[in-house]
Amino acid sequence: MKIDGKAYRTIWPATDARAVEIIDQTKLPHEFAVARLETVEQAAVAITDMWVRGAPLIGATAAYGIALGMDADPSDAGLAAAHDRLLNTRPTAVNLHWALADMRETLAPLAPEARADAAWTRAGEIADADVTMNHAIGVHGLGLLRAIHQGKGEPEVLNVLTHCNAGWLATVDWGTALSPIYQAYEQGLPIHVWVDETRPRNQGASLTAWELGRHGVPHTVIADNAGGHLMQHGLVDACIVGTDRTTATGDVCNKIGTYLKALAAFDNGVPFYVALPSPTIDWTLDDGVKEIPIEQRAATEQSHISGVTADGRIETVRLTPEGSACANYAFDVTPARLVTALITERGSCDASRDGLLTLFPERSPKA
Amino acid sequence: MKIDGKAYRTIWPATDARAVEIIDQTKLPHEFAVARLETVEQAAVAITDMWVRGAPLIGATAAYGIALGMDADPSDAGLAAAHDRLLNTRPTAVNLHWALADMRETLAPLAPEARADAAWTRAGEIADADVTMNHAIGVHGLGLLRAIHQGKGEPEVLNVLTHCNAGWLATVDWGTALSPIYQAYEQGLPIHVWVDETRPRNQGASLTAWELGRHGVPHTVIADNAGGHLMQHGLVDACIVGTDRTTATGDVCNKIGTYLKALAAFDNGVPFYVALPSPTIDWTLDDGVKEIPIEQRAATEQSHISGVTADGRIETVRLTPEGSACANYAFDVTPARLVTALITERGSCDASRDGLLTLFPERSPKA
Repeated sequence: MKIDGKAYRTIWPATDARAVEIIDQTKLPHEFAVARLETVEQAAVAITDMWVRGAPLIGATAAYGIALGMDADPSDAGLAAAHDRLLNTRPTAVNLHWALADMRETLAPLAPEARADAAWTRAGEIADADVTMNHAIGVHGLGLLRAIHQGKGEPEVLNVLTHCNAGWLATVDWGTALSPIYQAYEQGLPIHVWVDETRPRNQGASLTAWELGRHGVPHTVIADNAGGHLMQHGLVDACIVGTDRTTATGDVCNKIGTYLKALAAFDNGVPFYVALPSPTIDWTLDDGVKEIPIEQRAATEQSHISGVTADGRIETVRLTPEGSACANYAFDVTPARLVTALITERGSCDASRDGLLTLFPERSPKA
Repeated sequence: MKIDGKAYRTIWPATDARAVEIIDQTKLPHEFAVARLETVEQAAVAITDMWVRGAPLIGATAAYGIALGMDADPSDAGLAAAHDRLLNTRPTAVNLHWALADMRETLAPLAPEARADAAWTRAGEIADADVTMNHAIGVHGLGLLRAIHQGKGEPEVLNVLTHCNAGWLATVDWGTALSPIYQAYEQGLPIHVWVDETRPRNQGASLTAWELGRHGVPHTVIADNAGGHLMQHGLVDACIVGTDRTTATGDVCNKIGTYLKALAAFDNGVPFYVALPSPTIDWTLDDGVKEIPIEQRAATEQSHISGVTADGRIETVRLTPEGSACANYAFDVTPARLVTALITERGSCDASRDGLLTLFPERSPKA
């Protein structure tokens, strides 16, 4: 999407040399900085230290990391070393495993001298495939938003609430939950986004607000506490969120707090949509609340926060009293019964096994 | 309650002179400081600048402010001036109006030379009455907590979730929602409190965590987003919150985000209690969502936050990108259908008109 009028992706090959450029997301929203990755090691650090984040973008970065490795050492040993170094960056990321396996399978059969060019080509294809998938999610989601807008008599503003960051910064481009929003904006639908701050890591207040603002999409940051009140008073026409993991029955594991917004949407008759590329569906899971373990992260993410001072310094401050414990649950599960529809690259469907199988019939036990 | 072993109230007459001492709550949780009020003007500033906050404590501070005024000028003009100066501090606070009217009605009939002593006596009575009322709420709430503990087979920990600060810092002593918790702790019930951070003003992470910690009550600060997940997994045995305004039908207007926790409690069969001194009941209101206007406060409370740096400085930092709008809704309304019971100084009751009239029969149209 655009940053102050200029189109960007979150990752792209440099034009002047065999290198990759990325947006250093650790500096957002207070500084926009492009970082250059020239080695496997630099790509690995960029993933580990969260210069890039979001499963699709991590996968693309790992693929380009292999390409950087093939420039330096295209031997079998070089390929294995690059693969293993990148795999050890964020061990639980599904897309990371998938992209690295794809690169290895593509390159291993080739003669070493052919691997570097093939790696750059394949990494580009992986990045492009992500863009294509997210664009398709946006097209299907836009149809839903347009129908709501028309159903409400085309009000002057269509208010959409989102939680966390499922925007283009989490992918190569477009994002998942924000893809329909960008497409609505591009098509002239009068859209306004309520951006949940998303404590404790504040991905909404920092990343979602930043990317919507730089592209020009009207938005307002609110406390995570505010969405229920807004829905009670007709100030939200739809919710759209992303998901980290989706069960075969349509339960959705997403950033902590998603479940509370889904409850409020259900209580007030507001449509609650979940946008997802189909690789996030775990077809082996039936009950998200019972089966998906929820990661607990460092308590300091809750007790401390960083921001910019009036004179432009980045400072980290402690919010809680000395001696008070903090807990930091990273995700929660929203049961399918609270989800109006899932929006995938193949279209939207009921959040249920039957719904998903209409879009993905090859997953049917009968298929 | 206690601060590191020593009993305090939030406001008390000085022992060495005609002055009032308060805890300067603007410095919490990073510094415990006692401030001394010697004039009407100082009392007014303490209210306006939120050195004291919470409706009951504001009322008591205003009453003592009148007493300070009577020491300086007990004439009719002095009484009127003190009354008017204090009334203009936080014009919407119900207890402020009530306490000032009480003091004026008590003092106006007296000869000027009798007013100062009478004012100190009456201010003390107003403070004591708040303590008595909150203690009674605690007794009734403790009965409910004890029943839950016994009903669950007396587990090793009884987990109670609270939102915002309805603790002793918001009152003269005991608090409202926290009064049952302090009494449970005093009685040896193995209680642990999940403390909602309560964005955007963080009253939970700063004030509730501080007062529980200083008294010794086990607690853990969590993001406002986390409560739903905890309830899904059986980690919350009850919720107790306060209220700023309660309708005659049992709808509850409390800090923004309360409604979301009530939805999660209802969805998971967790009891959701609201503790209230009966003066917060507005017997003229029937429908909280429709009839109670919700204050919007400064957007900077959402965009900026203060805390303490590693080297002990208090800093304010901006969290949001430049150019992103913020909205700051201060309260929301929880419909009575989501409230398990109201806990008042007279006992607990269904959150309904009939329920309230069993405790307050004098409010019945037939009475």
